[in-house]
Order: sequence, then C-alpha cells, then structure tokens
Amino acid sequence: MSSHQKPSTAGKPIRCKAAVCRVAGAPLVMEEVTVAPPQAHEARIRIVCTSLCQSDVTFWKLKDFPGITPRILGHEAIGIVESVGAEVTELTEGDTVIPVFLSDCGECSDCLSKKSNLCSKLPFKVSPWMPRDGTSRFTDLDGNTIHHFLSVSSFSEYTVVDIAHLTKIDLDGDVQMNRACLLSCGVSTGVGAAWRTADVEEGTTVVIFGLGSIGLAVAEGARIRGAARIIGIDMKPEKFDVGKKFGITEFVNPADCGDKPLSQVINEMTKGGADYCFECVGLPSLMEEAYACCRKGWGKTIVLGVARPMSEMKLECFKVLHFGKILTGSLFGGLKPKSDIPMLLKRYMDRDLELDKFVTHELDFEEINTAFDLLVEGKSLRCVMWMDR
Amino acid sequence: MSSHQKPSTAGKPIRCKAAVCRVAGAPLVMEEVTVAPPQAHEARIRIVCTSLCQSDVTFWKLKDFPGITPRILGHEAIGIVESVGAEVTELTEGDTVIPVFLSDCGECSDCLSKKSNLCSKLPFKVSPWMPRDGTSRFTDLDGNTIHHFLSVSSFSEYTVVDIAHLTKIDLDGDVQMNRACLLSCGVSTGVGAAWRTADVEEGTTVVIFGLGSIGLAVAEGARIRGAARIIGIDMKPEKFDVGKKFGITEFVNPADCGDKPLSQVINEMTKGGADYCFECVGLPSLMEEAYACCRKGWGKTIVLGVARPMSEMKLECFKVLHFGKILTGSLFGGLKPKSDIPMLLKRYMDRDLELDKFVTHELDFEEINTAFDLLVEGKSLRCVMWMDR
Repeated sequence: MSSHQKPSTAGKPIRCKAAVCRVAGAPLVMEEVTVAPPQAHEARIRIVCTSLCQSDVTFWKLKDFPGITPRILGHEAIGIVESVGAEVTELTEGDTVIPVFLSDCGECSDCLSKKSNLCSKLPFKVSPWMPRDGTSRFTDLDGNTIHHFLSVSSFSEYTVVDIAHLTKIDLDGDVQMNRACLLSCGVSTGVGAAWRTADVEEGTTVVIFGLGSIGLAVAEGARIRGAARIIGIDMKPEKFDVGKKFGITEFVNPADCGDKPLSQVINEMTKGGADYCFECVGLPSLMEEAYACCRKGWGKTIVLGVARPMSEMKLECFKVLHFGKILTGSLFGGLKPKSDIPMLLKRYMDRDLELDKFVTHELDFEEINTAFDLLVEGKSLRCVMWMDR
Repeated sequence: MSSHQKPSTAGKPIRCKAAVCRVAGAPLVMEEVTVAPPQAHEARIRIVCTSLCQSDVTFWKLKDFPGITPRILGHEAIGIVESVGAEVTELTEGDTVIPVFLSDCGECSDCLSKKSNLCSKLPFKVSPWMPRDGTSRFTDLDGNTIHHFLSVSSFSEYTVVDIAHLTKIDLDGDVQMNRACLLSCGVSTGVGAAWRTADVEEGTTVVIFGLGSIGLAVAEGARIRGAARIIGIDMKPEKFDVGKKFGITEFVNPADCGDKPLSQVINEMTKGGADYCFECVGLPSLMEEAYACCRKGWGKTIVLGVARPMSEMKLECFKVLHFGKILTGSLFGGLKPKSDIPMLLKRYMDRDLELDKFVTHELDFEEINTAFDLLVEGKSLRCVMWMDR
C-alpha cells in the first residue's frame, strides 16, 4: 500500500471525493470536499474500504437533531494513516487502522478497568463534530462546514479521526481490507455481545430478536461458543435460510404466533425460557418480550437495538425481584476497540470467526446510493465499498 | 435440648399455642391450635425462637388476597424437629433446623445449577397452603382450617414445614438460637445480596436505599467485603447512627435534597455513580433512582424491596443500551438455603458476620403484638421472641 502514501500532503488540506448527505433521506451527493490536516491527537486517514451499517441509514433519514446536514456519514471502515497531528505517538503514516465510533483513550477509569468499554474521557455522543475540540475538519468547495458522524465519517476518501477512535492493526497477506473493515462496527458488536457482555456458555439456549447483521453476528458468536440452540426471530421468513449459515437452529416468525405473545412461544419452546436473549431491533416492546422469555434464575437479556429517543421499556417490579433475571445493554459488544479488534482479527485469521458470509455485496464507492437501496430493501447484510478499486 | 423432645407425640396431632391473624391489621389472637402430623416430605418442628420480619407486617395488613384469614404468620425462625413424615431421610427427631420461605429441593435444574437459587420443583409462591400438596396442617379448636404463610408459619409453638424448606444446622455451644434464627430470612437476604448477587468488591462504593434490617444486612455484607464507601439513604435521620454500626459511612436523607433528584445527589457524591445500588424499600420510583445512580459501564442495581402487585418500573431504552448498567433482583440474597445458611453460620461463629447488633429486642412469644408495634413504629430492627423461656 506504500504507493498510496502521499507524505507530501501532510500538514496541508486535501481535496477529495466524499458522499455528502445534503438532504435527509435523499440520495447522497458525490462531491469534492476539503479535509483539513489533523489537529493534536488526531490522524488523517485514507479510507480503503467502508461498509454500510443500519445506523448510517437511521441517521440519513433523520430530519431533526441529532440528524443534521450537510454531513458525511459512514462509520464502519478501514484505512491507512496519511498523516498525524501533534502529540500522536502511537500511530504513524502508513499504519493500517480501523476507526470505531467508540473511543478507547486508555487513560480514564473506564478504559483502565476490565469491566467497562465506555470511555469517560471522550464519552460516546451522537455529535456532528470532532470529539475532542468540537469543530469540523470538513468543508465543501464553497467553504461551508460539513458535519462529522460518530467520530468517523468514512464516506469520504479522506477523513480525520481522533486517535482514541483508531485501532492499529497488523495485516498479514491473508487478511483482506474488505473483510477486516467489518470489525469496525457491526460484527464486533454482535460477536462481542455474545462473548463479552453475555459470556455465552457451551450447550446453552440463545434467542436473537432481529436477524440483521448485528443479530447474525450475535449468532456467529454464540455458534463459536457452542450454544446448543440458537433461535432466530424475524418478520422475514427468508431470514431463516440466511441465518442457518450463522448457526441459527430454529426460526420463529412473530406473524405465525397467532394470539400468543412471542415470549410465551419462546417460553414453551425452551421449557421455561432461554439462557440469553438479545434484542437487536430497538423496540421497547421487544425488549420487554426478550426479558419475559429469558430464564428465571440466570437468564440474561442484552439490549443491542437502538430505540427511538426517550422511549421506555417497562418491567414489573415483582418479576424483577422474584425471577433474578439480568438486564443489561451492550455498546460495541462490550469490547474495548484497541485490544479486542486485534483479538477478533486473529480469530478470523485462525478461521474461527467467519467474516466472509456477512459480505453480500461489494461496490465501488461511487455506487454508494445503490448500497443504501440494498440495505433499505433488506437485500444486503454488509455491502463493502472500495474507495479506489 | 433433648429434654424438649417429645417422641410420644409423633404421628399424633399436637395441641399448642399459636398467634393467629384472625382479622387483617388487628392484633394477633393467642389461641390453642391443632397441628397435624407431618405428611410425606414434611417435618413437624418445635419452634424455639421466631423473629418478626417486615413481610409479616405487610401480609398482616393485607385485607385482600394474597392476604387471607385466619392465618399463622411468621417465617424467620429456628426450631427442633419433633417428628418427620414418610420419605424423610435427611432429618430426624431432635435435629436443629432453620426454616426458609424459599425451597431448596436439591434435585431440579435450578437447585443443581450454581447460578440459581430459585427452586423450580417447589417454586416460590405466596400461598396459604403447604407447598407440596396444597393443604393445611393447622386447625383451630372448632376444627376450622387455619392457613399457612410462606411455607413456614412460625408464630406457633409447633409448625409443619416441607423438608425442601428446612436447613439442618449443627449448633455448637457458642451459637445461640436467638441469633441463628436471623439467618432464616432478613440477614441472609441482605448479606447474600451483597455477597452473591452483587459480589461486592473491596474498595467499591455501595448505595443502600432503605435502612431497615434488609438494608442494614446489605451494609454488613458490604462492610465485610471491604467496600470503601457505604452510603445509606433513609427518610429517618436517626438511621444514620444506627447504620454506622453496620458500616454505613455516609447518610443521605431524601428530604434534605431540595429540588435535586436523589440520583443526582448520589451521582455528584460519587462522581458518576455507585458501583452497586441496592433498593430495599419496594418503590418503583426508588428502583428507577437506584438505576439512575449506579455507575455506567459496570454499575449494578439490585432490587430487594417488595413492591405493590403489578407495579412497574420504567427504564429509558437509550440508557439501557448506552450505559451498560446491570439490573437484577435478589430473592433470599441469591443464596441456596441448605448450603449457604451453614456457611453464614460459620462466618458468625468466626466472629466475622455480626448478628448481635441486629437484635434490638427480645420478648416472650406471648408479647408478639408488642413486637408488631415496635416494628410498625420503626423502633426495632429484629425483635426475637422465645417460644418457651
């Protein structure tokens, strides 16, 4: 990749192509933008591959704050460091990096603890700015500010990312950029939720609500851990065939449950509830159903789905006390990006974690609106786009 | 104690004194009752000491089901086996036993698992009957049925208890019945919640909502584990002086918080939330406050309080996902009676777990209505009554 390094650009603005969200819900506009040099604790990255995640679509559609325009979306990617700002010692030009929406400063009480992945120095915010100084590195050709997204903004040939949001990886010849980029968000989130947050044990029963990429990544994690039963729930019957590749052993379509609540169906199938329930949709009612069909005594319900702002789930106090179930949430699968992404990459290189099956489409960056169509229509799991193929 | 054994009564009804709840909320009536012989898997127990727990008062006041009259309340006690029914091999006449509202059958998937204490063979129910066959062993002198309470009914000189609800203990000369009986419910619940459910670690911060006996037992458990800060919350200022003996280091009276929500006060005191929050009152709003001030990333909220039937707590879905907090409940402190009560007793004998300070009053059984008055007026923690002193 060294031929792509352009040390001569260090310290100078770069003009490049980006897909800009100018109007919420309208096709992205492929245009020239200017990417300012990285400031202190930042690196400028040449994106090699970016994929499309459901959250990009969610924010693309959002008319009101935290939706904002113009903005460069995209947060699941892989790239090469073009240049670094002041104070940056852990990265240098030419390093391969995976950007992540979740920071890992390595210094705060959360990053220093084994128990948390929720960095408190640069806490997760759906902010349109760089995380450390609250400004933008993007301008359009008229000199107007373009906003950032989730501290990544990978739908651009170049982007600037805070080093707390960058994980350096060592790629050997066997690992391809169009696979490793999946570890930037969705696959890590699902696999991490199964391995770290839930700590799925061999021989157990897992229920997954929603078989998008996150849900299927949970299944992949549970499959590797040796779960005996992995029950997938989705409104689309075709998801069962897809799910089988990821370890789904049984399928329930809520539309086929008649008058029975979904939780009752699962409680009957599992004779008293599942060991682990993962909510990967973001519906309060489904979170409640998941809680209702995880097993008393030790069942864990893990929320991964992003619900509408201010929405609430309700729990009957009697059941909280008497059933001893555990409820928790999992952001980025409970993983610490800088230590756990290399671990996941190794599991992929060891042919243990299977990434290939997540990639249903590969496109050129210019075809990004097709990638949006495919995801919105439910036709893709992960569509990887090459910036320069 | 062998002089108290009356083997001649085996197989025959026993007439004895009991304090019967004839009218909800009215003083108990001390009367003669008949206690039938134990059936299969049951033992008849001569109660030596019983103490009064908040749940006795709650059910005593309840006019509607699951309140019921006439009933023999009482569920925190210690006694001697008078006789055993068919199929009983683990107990024999003269054994010292602690009855517990929670069963421990030793055979079901929950009892066989290390992760659960919620026996599924005889699951916890607020039933007015014996757990296995749904009948009563108590009749009054007119031959009318008297109901059971929580599978124990210790406000009687004799009671019949299913063996799944009985833990045999070995008392050496140092352990007094009026201390060991506390392990039958309240102290075990609180200490267990700190040790087993929460697994409180050294140097951590603990917040306890409600400083009754359960809350103070949580403090005792946290103190022994070496918690650095144990913040007690109660509406009664005098609870702070009481709490100090149990390890409470700081005190917050919600009445002194002005316009600030309690959770905000705790979040400020703890710079971002406590490692563990224990709700020991049973108010949905307080469960929500506890959840709101346990620390992101790893904070655990443990519900111990018994809320009104059908009451619900609400959680904002965004926070469930993004803050990675853990919510769970703890019945009998997550302890398995038959293995954990002997463990707690040993900790008491080792002068590690302090039981004496829980006992604020000792009375004769005949003074039971005074015990109710003391607890209702908030003047007692544990009032131990001797059946035959």
